[in-house]
Amino acid sequence: MTPILDRIDRPQDLHSLTDDELAQVAQEVRAHIIDTVGEIGGHFGANLGTCELAVALHSLLDSPRDKVLWDVGHQAYPHKVLTGRRDQLPTIRQYEGLAPFCAIHESEHDIMGAGHASTSIGYAVGLKEAMRLQGDIDAGKVVAVIGDGAMTGGVAFEAIGQAGGLGTPIVVVLNDNGMSIAPNVGALSRYFNRVRLNPKLYRAREGVEEKLTKLPAGIGTAFEHLGPQLKESIKAFWAPGLIWEELDWAYMGVIDGHDVHALRIALTEALDAQRPVVVHIATVKGKGFEPAENGGLEGMEKWHAAKPKSIANGAPAKAAPKPANGPVAPPQYTTVFGEALVREVERDPRIVGITAAMNSGTGLNILQKAKPEHYFDVGIAEQQAVLFASGLALQGAKPVCAIYSTFLQRAFDQIVHDVALQKLNVVFAMDRAGLVGDDGPTHHGAFDIAYLRCLPNMVLMAPRDEAMLVRMLRTAMLHDDGPIALRYPRGEAAGVPIPDDPEPIELGTGEILREGGRVAIVGYGTGVLKALEAADRLAEGGLDVTVADARFAKPMDRALLAQLAAEHELVVTVEEGVLHGGFGSAVWETLNDAGLPVPRILRVGLPDRYVTHGKPALLHSEVGFTGPRIAERIEAVLRDPQAALAGR
Amino acid sequence: MTPILDRIDRPQDLHSLTDDELAQVAQEVRAHIIDTVGEIGGHFGANLGTCELAVALHSLLDSPRDKVLWDVGHQAYPHKVLTGRRDQLPTIRQYEGLAPFCAIHESEHDIMGAGHASTSIGYAVGLKEAMRLQGDIDAGKVVAVIGDGAMTGGVAFEAIGQAGGLGTPIVVVLNDNGMSIAPNVGALSRYFNRVRLNPKLYRAREGVEEKLTKLPAGIGTAFEHLGPQLKESIKAFWAPGLIWEELDWAYMGVIDGHDVHALRIALTEALDAQRPVVVHIATVKGKGFEPAENGGLEGMEKWHAAKPKSIANGAPAKAAPKPANGPVAPPQYTTVFGEALVREVERDPRIVGITAAMNSGTGLNILQKAKPEHYFDVGIAEQQAVLFASGLALQGAKPVCAIYSTFLQRAFDQIVHDVALQKLNVVFAMDRAGLVGDDGPTHHGAFDIAYLRCLPNMVLMAPRDEAMLVRMLRTAMLHDDGPIALRYPRGEAAGVPIPDDPEPIELGTGEILREGGRVAIVGYGTGVLKALEAADRLAEGGLDVTVADARFAKPMDRALLAQLAAEHELVVTVEEGVLHGGFGSAVWETLNDAGLPVPRILRVGLPDRYVTHGKPALLHSEVGFTGPRIAERIEAVLRDPQAALAGR
Repeated sequence: MTPILDRIDRPQDLHSLTDDELAQVAQEVRAHIIDTVGEIGGHFGANLGTCELAVALHSLLDSPRDKVLWDVGHQAYPHKVLTGRRDQLPTIRQYEGLAPFCAIHESEHDIMGAGHASTSIGYAVGLKEAMRLQGDIDAGKVVAVIGDGAMTGGVAFEAIGQAGGLGTPIVVVLNDNGMSIAPNVGALSRYFNRVRLNPKLYRAREGVEEKLTKLPAGIGTAFEHLGPQLKESIKAFWAPGLIWEELDWAYMGVIDGHDVHALRIALTEALDAQRPVVVHIATVKGKGFEPAENGGLEGMEKWHAAKPKSIANGAPAKAAPKPANGPVAPPQYTTVFGEALVREVERDPRIVGITAAMNSGTGLNILQKAKPEHYFDVGIAEQQAVLFASGLALQGAKPVCAIYSTFLQRAFDQIVHDVALQKLNVVFAMDRAGLVGDDGPTHHGAFDIAYLRCLPNMVLMAPRDEAMLVRMLRTAMLHDDGPIALRYPRGEAAGVPIPDDPEPIELGTGEILREGGRVAIVGYGTGVLKALEAADRLAEGGLDVTVADARFAKPMDRALLAQLAAEHELVVTVEEGVLHGGFGSAVWETLNDAGLPVPRILRVGLPDRYVTHGKPALLHSEVGFTGPRIAERIEAVLRDPQAALAGR
Repeated sequence: MTPILDRIDRPQDLHSLTDDELAQVAQEVRAHIIDTVGEIGGHFGANLGTCELAVALHSLLDSPRDKVLWDVGHQAYPHKVLTGRRDQLPTIRQYEGLAPFCAIHESEHDIMGAGHASTSIGYAVGLKEAMRLQGDIDAGKVVAVIGDGAMTGGVAFEAIGQAGGLGTPIVVVLNDNGMSIAPNVGALSRYFNRVRLNPKLYRAREGVEEKLTKLPAGIGTAFEHLGPQLKESIKAFWAPGLIWEELDWAYMGVIDGHDVHALRIALTEALDAQRPVVVHIATVKGKGFEPAENGGLEGMEKWHAAKPKSIANGAPAKAAPKPANGPVAPPQYTTVFGEALVREVERDPRIVGITAAMNSGTGLNILQKAKPEHYFDVGIAEQQAVLFASGLALQGAKPVCAIYSTFLQRAFDQIVHDVALQKLNVVFAMDRAGLVGDDGPTHHGAFDIAYLRCLPNMVLMAPRDEAMLVRMLRTAMLHDDGPIALRYPRGEAAGVPIPDDPEPIELGTGEILREGGRVAIVGYGTGVLKALEAADRLAEGGLDVTVADARFAKPMDRALLAQLAAEHELVVTVEEGVLHGGFGSAVWETLNDAGLPVPRILRVGLPDRYVTHGKPALLHSEVGFTGPRIAERIEAVLRDPQAALAGR
């Protein structure tokens, strides 16, 4: 039988189908995702949980006039499949292929761009209030789909408050699967657990009386195996809607998120309401893929994303056997960091690691296992991660906030106002600094050098390899004069030996790695490796250049820079960050402010635009962040002293 | 009779007093604040509301071993008076006097530094968890005092979630006066109103049964005049604690916040609990000062802060009559902006103004009055202000986020991820850019040039006077190619005529204001006025210099800069922002990247440290941001070409 999905070229093609046919489409979407993502890799578990929801929503809505906003966007693959991108799914997360999250420039059905969590409700309020302002509040329905994990982000709460206050008629679908990437933490998670575990609940949206009305089909079946933990409290029975209702939202739930019929009944009612409504649905992350669905928390976390070629014929593929005596791949920076942090905690029990729902992504899962009492996960709540660290530091602990460069942006004010101004001993370990690859522009760590360098009391470091990473971590743990931050990239480290007892580094000191003439290349972090590659290339052409590792972007090594400037006609700076106000500018500022003659400075880094997704090597090549390209640019500048230095 | 307060030199001096004596101390603190702040000016209404609370807390606690965290800190004057700073109160907000908010370097009793809202609960969790980690969870009690207005900030919600999840035994005193600075907005405000208006409520902290136990003295009296609006709903009766209890907090309330006896009973119970407890108290902003207490919302907002010499003998002082035919003071930038925005809305109905609880501080009160449907206040929720704007922009509206430079830091990730990356047409109007004066380091707008300039798609402008401000606002309203931001200072404008139909400015174009030789001074925003003053001073010494207004920090006017660099031996940049990655660096980047010869560049701006509080003129003098000082530095550099250019 030909799949119905083959005929779904636009979401409106769902409108004429029966509930049974829609349920079948959802299954076909699920199979398509399992086959495709299992082959090419990508976000997995959350997408399997939203197949019925995406079908139900688009069967009732007229997208893009009606607008569905997918929070984060890593659960939007079914939406992409149903909105004209079915056949392109195999290109997702590939260079020049579909974006990994929703992207407004990719499709008119991707209403907002996303990648960071907890933004959808805020957008929804704006969209709807714009319609009201334009005199046509019914210009389109607005639905935000948000996971329970993203609900821990404070901005979601801010948006719920505004919508309740204005009475903005939007619908929030609270997609409750009990997981963000790591298992949810904190009180909000416990609240959702209490609610999710109660299968008898269906509260209507009006009034203060609770209507335990007819249960839609499907309720009370799918979740019964979760039942025994139900909290023995009458409050747990009545409570679920109250948080919302107290904030002037109507609450409906809990709906079986894998029952198209039940979803359509509930959503129809919600979409007709002229006020803010939340529809609380329960879904299973990894639904329909046995190792994820029935693998417990571990299975769900493991299958948050699937690796390429990890699934064959709908089941986990056998991993290829490792060749005996083959070369050992270098460890991931993330692992090096996590293991080094455990060793630091063993040395100094004041040390505490903090993550914001990125337990394994930051390597803190290693700390959690080894030293659970020194490990904290605040949930998707970067602001609180930093405030919590501030409180810990005030009481004499040594907190390490392990947060991706891009997500640390969420806590910028706390860094300015609560850490740097107070000069507290908080360490920031920024994984995923630079171009992260497949996750694309929302996830690249492009700005941290600039946004942290402007802050007083801040020390900034970046290692060129894993040995330097552990030395810098040691340096940070011994630093007791305010905040200190280190950035390192996603992916494999350089493959050098890791010292057991790492030697700390004197603040603000770089080092010369090779000496030559005419040109000095000064690298920062990953830029050092590119500098060395460029030097190799230039040496092949007969030009021996000097290469230095700055190690610090703040404070700068003035003596080293003065020496380099005095002895070379061209200084080249290499950093994996944007150039506006970045490390290269710091080099000039240092030389100029010291009253020294400043040579021309060729700055190499990331461009003044958002960079797309794709394999890091491809992206680095696209933006000119490669050794050979740097060598070419140096040669061009040496040939023509009037040449413009911008470019790539 | 000698006031008891005269004997209170440390908070422990309260321990031996009776409830009646404590109540008298609270009254004496209040009188001291009315007298002092009425004379010198400062935060007023909120401080009158916390006299009894501060007395009650310190009568029970052993500060600083026990820790009281005052959210924002503008209600902490009673705390300051009781912790050894009674006689220094007349110096508050004055240069080298007491800080306007809590400051950890001022007193061991100021546990955390504050100024931005909603941070206290997050700190409290960190302090207490550090004690737990150190093996002595009873090392000190931790109490956070937070206003109902600050509860709209998402980070407070994040912290409540973490504390509930961990069961951290801290006490939050929710100081509910129904106001932030402007009247609270949104659903959370309505929730607190419902609760506050119910005088019969006292819910104990254990179990699900509601205990309507003995009411502490004072409950049910002070607030009865607010009674009639009580929502007729059984839920409003039961609900108040549920939000907290669902998040695993114990809830106690509502307590009369002006009854020392009742406060002490409730706080004693809360401090003994081994779990997170919220004590919900009702206070009156402006308590004990009749025009504030009984002046309705208007009175409370008006007396949020008192002007110098505004009170005499406990009553409003008569304003000195304005001299007839005297010189007319220039308008405030804030007012110019607010009025200009109204005119823009009249021209283009797509325009919307958004504030985050800074209605009159941003001038949006003018818009609110003239065009209420084009005005939105999201509460203390800068992140949501920007997300809401993103949604509005996606639907074709033209949102203007009017947010102080320092508070916009809260929304940095939304600017990066939701506005700049999506290239949405959102306008940022940053009032209070530069040194704000009395409010000090937490409020100075020092970083916005650096933290916004690094972002792709961003346009940055700053006006030198009010005529340029309205032209830039017009420019922003016509810009339809992504975000655009303008920054302007607190205080009086320059006093030039404001055009009725302002001419937009071509993006990335500066202008030369006077021509001279040897030296070119390029100002940005308020830096232009300092540049002109410096030029006047230099002209007195016989040196005519060139002065230019860059107008844009991104994109830069490359042709103008090339001309200035070619024709002058020294370029001087002047900006009211930090130098690391700031406007001066942009000048160098532009010249260097174009392959042009770069002269020496003397960069004048704010130093790489946090600047204290005091009158702006004093602060500008301290950091060298004055025309005469700039002239001196230029002369020194011209005398000695080897001179270091750093300094002030």
